[in-house]
Order: sequence, then C-alpha cells, then structure tokens
Amino acid sequence: MAVGEIKIPLMPAIAGVRLASVKAGIRYSDRDDLVLVELAEGASVAGCFTRNLYKAAPVIVCQDHLAVAEPRYLLINSGNANACTGKQGLEDAQKSCDWVADQAGVAPEAVLPFSTGVIGMPMNMSALEKGIPNAYAALDEHNWEPVARSIMTTDTFPKMVTREIDFDGSKVRINGIAKGAGMIRPDMATMLAYVVTDAKIGKEPLQKICSLATDKSFNRVTVDGDTSTNDSVILAATGKAKMPFIESMETHFGRLFTNTVIEVFQELAQLLVRDGEGATKFVTIVVDGAAGTDDCLKVAYCIAHSPLVKTAMFASDPNWGRLVAAVGRADVENLDVSSVRVWLDDQLIVENAGVAASYREELGQRVFDQPEFTIRVDLGMGNFSESIWTCDLSHEYISINADYRS
Amino acid sequence: MAVGEIKIPLMPAIAGVRLASVKAGIRYSDRDDLVLVELAEGASVAGCFTRNLYKAAPVIVCQDHLAVAEPRYLLINSGNANACTGKQGLEDAQKSCDWVADQAGVAPEAVLPFSTGVIGMPMNMSALEKGIPNAYAALDEHNWEPVARSIMTTDTFPKMVTREIDFDGSKVRINGIAKGAGMIRPDMATMLAYVVTDAKIGKEPLQKICSLATDKSFNRVTVDGDTSTNDSVILAATGKAKMPFIESMETHFGRLFTNTVIEVFQELAQLLVRDGEGATKFVTIVVDGAAGTDDCLKVAYCIAHSPLVKTAMFASDPNWGRLVAAVGRADVENLDVSSVRVWLDDQLIVENAGVAASYREELGQRVFDQPEFTIRVDLGMGNFSESIWTCDLSHEYISINADYRS
Repeated sequence: MAVGEIKIPLMPAIAGVRLASVKAGIRYSDRDDLVLVELAEGASVAGCFTRNLYKAAPVIVCQDHLAVAEPRYLLINSGNANACTGKQGLEDAQKSCDWVADQAGVAPEAVLPFSTGVIGMPMNMSALEKGIPNAYAALDEHNWEPVARSIMTTDTFPKMVTREIDFDGSKVRINGIAKGAGMIRPDMATMLAYVVTDAKIGKEPLQKICSLATDKSFNRVTVDGDTSTNDSVILAATGKAKMPFIESMETHFGRLFTNTVIEVFQELAQLLVRDGEGATKFVTIVVDGAAGTDDCLKVAYCIAHSPLVKTAMFASDPNWGRLVAAVGRADVENLDVSSVRVWLDDQLIVENAGVAASYREELGQRVFDQPEFTIRVDLGMGNFSESIWTCDLSHEYISINADYRS
Repeated sequence: MAVGEIKIPLMPAIAGVRLASVKAGIRYSDRDDLVLVELAEGASVAGCFTRNLYKAAPVIVCQDHLAVAEPRYLLINSGNANACTGKQGLEDAQKSCDWVADQAGVAPEAVLPFSTGVIGMPMNMSALEKGIPNAYAALDEHNWEPVARSIMTTDTFPKMVTREIDFDGSKVRINGIAKGAGMIRPDMATMLAYVVTDAKIGKEPLQKICSLATDKSFNRVTVDGDTSTNDSVILAATGKAKMPFIESMETHFGRLFTNTVIEVFQELAQLLVRDGEGATKFVTIVVDGAAGTDDCLKVAYCIAHSPLVKTAMFASDPNWGRLVAAVGRADVENLDVSSVRVWLDDQLIVENAGVAASYREELGQRVFDQPEFTIRVDLGMGNFSESIWTCDLSHEYISINADYRS
C-alpha cells in the first residue's frame, strides 16, 4: 500500500537509449527479472554508490569499470543481490559483463552490472547466461515501464519520473526510474536509480550534478535506517539533444539542468518512501535554526528512526512526548531545550520545554489523521535547515520483513 | 510475553529499609501506582540518570536534592512521567517532596522524586496529595514485591533480584527491583531501578560502583533504541549489616561487593530485555577483536537496532546477509571486511567477505529457532570485546506502542 496518489507517467523515448526487460528465471519464475540498457556511443555516465563496507560484487565491478571506460550497457537483475558472495561473486559479476560484451561487441569494461535482492546466495549463472541474448534482442526505445517493473523487489509500484526542459526552444528530456522500499536510509540503501537524459554534458560536470542531487534526495530519505550493500545511482547523458554543450553547473543552462535533475532525483526518492515497506504515512521532517547541517540531520534522523515515533505515526497518535524525547537524545552539542520549538504542520506544540499554551490535543490529532504531514523542529541555535522524508512503522513492515526470503 | 523462565524471587527484608505501595489513582484506577521507600538515617545513596536533554522534572529535582542532602525517602509514581511539563512540572515535583517531608518530619531535600509513564501530561496533584499519607502509614519491611509491581507500566512481570554475600561470616543483602520494557537503550531509558543493600559504605565509593555497574548493565541493553526523559538508577546502602566499612572498590570486600552489585544490575538489565515490548527472542550480541570499546559498541548497536535484523530474529530466519550489512554500515574506521568473522552461537557463518565453507542453512536455522542465542562478530582488528543484550521486533511491539496512551 503506497501513501498518496501514485502516478505512473508515460515515459517518452530518449534519443540514444534502448532498453529491454525479460524473464530470465534467476530467482522469480513468474515475472521479468533481467534488464539491459544500451547507451549510444559517446554517452557520459556518472554514478554514486553505497558506503556500506560490505559492497556487493556488482558494485565493486561497476565502480572499477566506470573508472576506466565509457559505459555502453547496464545489466540489472532482481531477486539476487550477489552480495557477500566472496570471490565467486566477483567472478560471477565479471562473467556477466563478459557475456554482454561478447553479445554486443564491446569491451567488458563498457558493461556496468547491478543486482538487487537476497544477500549471500550464489548467482544463478546459467539463467543469466540464457537471459542476456534474449534481452539484447529485445532492446527498444519504449520499454521504460517494463524495465521499471522488472527491477522491483518488495516494491508495490514502479517508480518513474519524467521531465522536459526547454533550452531556448530545444527540448531536453530526463527519464528516471528507481526501485527500493525497505533498507532505505541516508547513504542510500537497497535502492537502484537510473536517470537518463539526452542532454549534452561531459562526464565531470555530470558526476558533480549526480553527487549533489543524490545528497539532496536519496541521502535524505529513510524507511528503517538500514542501508544496503548494493545501492547505486546512475546518471547518464546521451548528448543526442539539439542544444549547446553544458560546460558546468554554473552556466544558465547548467543551473536549469541541475535543478531539474535534483527535482527528478527528489521525486524518485520520495516515491521510495511513499512505497516504504508497510508505510501508511508520508512524513516530512524539517529541522530549522540549527548551528550546522550535521545537527539538522542528527535531530531529523533521530526522530525518523525512533520506533516509538514511527509507531505513533502509524497509530495516528500525536504523542509529541516521543518527539521531544528523540530531540533530547540526538546528541546536539550546547542545545538548550528551552529554546526548542516543535510544530506539527502549522500547529506549534512545544516551547519552553513544555507544551505550547495554544496547543489542544484535537489540533495535533487533526494533523496526525492525515496521510501526509510535516514535523518541524526549530533548535533556536542558528540558520541551518534541512528536510528529510520518512514513513511510519506498521504491522505490515514486520510481516514483509519477517516473511521475505522464506 | 517474556523470553525465558522468569523467577519471582522471595525478597528478604533489608535492615534500615521500609517500603509501601498504594492505589493513589494518579492515572490507573485499578492498581497500585504510588510507592514510598524509607531509608534509615545515615544511609548512603548514589544515582545515575538519563542523558536525554529533555530531563523530566522529577529527574532535575532528584539530582538537585541528591547533591545537597542525605536522602531518607524515595517517592515513585507510575502512569505519568511528569516530563516536558515545563515550570509547572518542576513545581509539582518539588511540591510532592514537600508533602512527604511534612508527613515524615524531614527536610524536602531528603526526598527524591521519580515518575514514569506518559510524557507531557500535567500531574494529578490531588491524587498524589491524598496518596502520600496512605503510603507513609503502610511502610513496612516486607513490601518488595508489591512495590516492584507498582512501578510497572507496560511491563508484563515485576523485575526482582536478590543476593546475599558472606563477608567472613557476616551476611550482607542486596535487593534490586526495576521497571521498563520499551524505550530501552544505552544511556538507559524509560527505566527505573532501585538496588538497596545493608552494606556499610560511604557515598563516594558507592557512586563509583553505581556508575560502573550501570555502564556494564543498563547501558548495555536495548529494545528499540529509544531513551527516555526519566531514567534513574538508585543504589542505596543502609549500613545496618554487621561488617567492616567498605573503604573502596579496591579492597577484598570492595571487590566482592562491587562484583555482586554488577551481577544484580546485569540481571535486572537482562530482565528488562526479556520483557522487551513484544519480545519473543533474547539475543546476546558479542563484538570481539575490536580496536576499541567504541568500535565494539558501534557494531553491536548497529546490529541490535537494525529493524531488518530484528524482524529476521522474530521470524526465526537466519538471514545473515542483514547482519553483515549492519556490520558494514557501522562506521568502523579501517575495517577490512575480509577479516571479519561472524558466528551464530558456535556456528561460523561468515568469513572472507562471504559465507563460511562449513555453513549450512539448517545449522543457522537451528540457532535462530531457539528463544535465546548469541550473535558474535570478530572484527579482526584488536583485543577489545563488549557484550550487549537485545530482543526482536515483533507485531506485538507495534501493537503495544500504537495503542499505549489512547
């Protein structure tokens, strides 16, 4: 069950990109589980990856390949993460690139592998080997939705966002897809995101934009505080649009392009939270008046990760005592709790280390009854502000994660 | 539902201590909710308190009083935490001490107040005022069990531990009681613990022992990572036993006494976890081979707080991939994952960044099927080791915390 109205947009073709989704039978037998994406020669590709020290084999191979070659193919499987699979896992990830390379007549380093699913299981290589030629044969400009569905694991809907920018009369398109519903938190999580544009831009500024946009989106959402071994975000630009080359983020076109990419990334990241495992609420947490970004995030995540706060959200119970207890243990140096103010939407609830004089329980109740609301904390210390997005903790989360794998 | 066989021991009287538990109707109408404990003149009292910046009013008053006077009375109510109640809350906590002081003919500073329950509600002062004389009249040496029951909130059983030490033929007794089932984590939580002995010992060494024992017990357990505004641990010594004075922790008697106090604290702390809200598993997490205590605790709590690990425990699913993902994101500097080994009880499951050759799923299954087991991680970096205790995350936890208060 997702929070809010989820739109499945019609994704336009992007010049220089072909995609395919097939049933390879790697783990699932009744659905597509293998994706191949082809990028035209000359495309620029940037990426951001998990900071978990247990990097999955495909992440290691992907980062190696990205460092030495111009990527032409992305190979993505769902159902098996090929993580914590030791030496064998690395060999398997490498071999899957070799197979694509043989098929397409490119160097193995031009292939980037991605996997999502269960950790610690050997990859079904014979299924993968059989699936690759089928995927190659099916490459087409119009397969965005089947591809977005194919990379899902516990997701309940495909995450798709599209934008068109007008650069002095030339149209530039940006398509983004993502998967992920649990193990989501800052520094990313069991999430994969692929954002592709036909803009003309070099690898270096593209990487800067990718890092900035990731930080403002996928690194600002949390479902359960867990991070995964496989998180990867790819931003690719085919350069096929009729437009001037974007030299940097600082030019007029550069700023417009950067802001639109950030929008796409944020919308995808918020879709992950809306589809958070078992989520019934979509909550924005804003921390204002902080002495620094770190303090903002400490407080925001302390609230967002508190199981007591999250169960209160699930129960539509404006139990603000749990909120202030979370603020109080967030380890903010020199915080004076008597200066802290807390709002639910526009309703002030806490000031002077106690309940606000104007607060009435029914006002808080009205906010918590909504499927979407904002918790805002002003620390009264400075001018820094950050927002993150999270969801509640429900029975359904337990069911999903107690049952998944078995 | 508690994990393991819970013993309700017969608590002996301790010379110099009288206790009472009464129905005051502060919030509950059908059970005792007010406790008074009297300590004989000359008793030494030590305490450890929450590090949450939102300290509840009684915690602030308690620490003030402890600093300036010899405590003679402890006043404890359940049902209302008197936390985040601003100036009024402080006045209420102070007034409750005044009432006990008037009744007993001592200075108000000789009274220590404690509260546990809902945050942010004004205290029912008229109920408290009426309850105090009733409690005073009921003081008796033998009320340990009713008192342990009276301080419960979401607890399903009273936590009681008793020990007797033989000091060259003289008997010294230690009785401990505690409450707490959720909002439990290092730096304590919605937990109150009172450990009383008839040993002869001064306030200064008693405080050192209290701090050490708290660190090795209540600061090593976690249910949900939440800490409360009201956590308090009190260690009191009446000095009524016939024994030599304990000058420090370093003497023969001092060591024996310290170790026994630590045992009592640890047993109480583990009872809190066994009664963790909705707990069906009691899990010991040991981190060995670390370069320092901090790294041990980072890894241990990262595992213990992972909702994915906790739901796998609940499902009796030896999903060790979630364990290593937690190790990998624990932010241990210079960790080489290929040196990390992980055991479930005596079963090696992970080495060389992959599954151990000897591991079979059914071996892990056998461990996870038990109600109690140990997860051990060797970081392969040094000689530090720490243990913590935690429980799983179940449907029942959600039910309890979504329903409490409403």
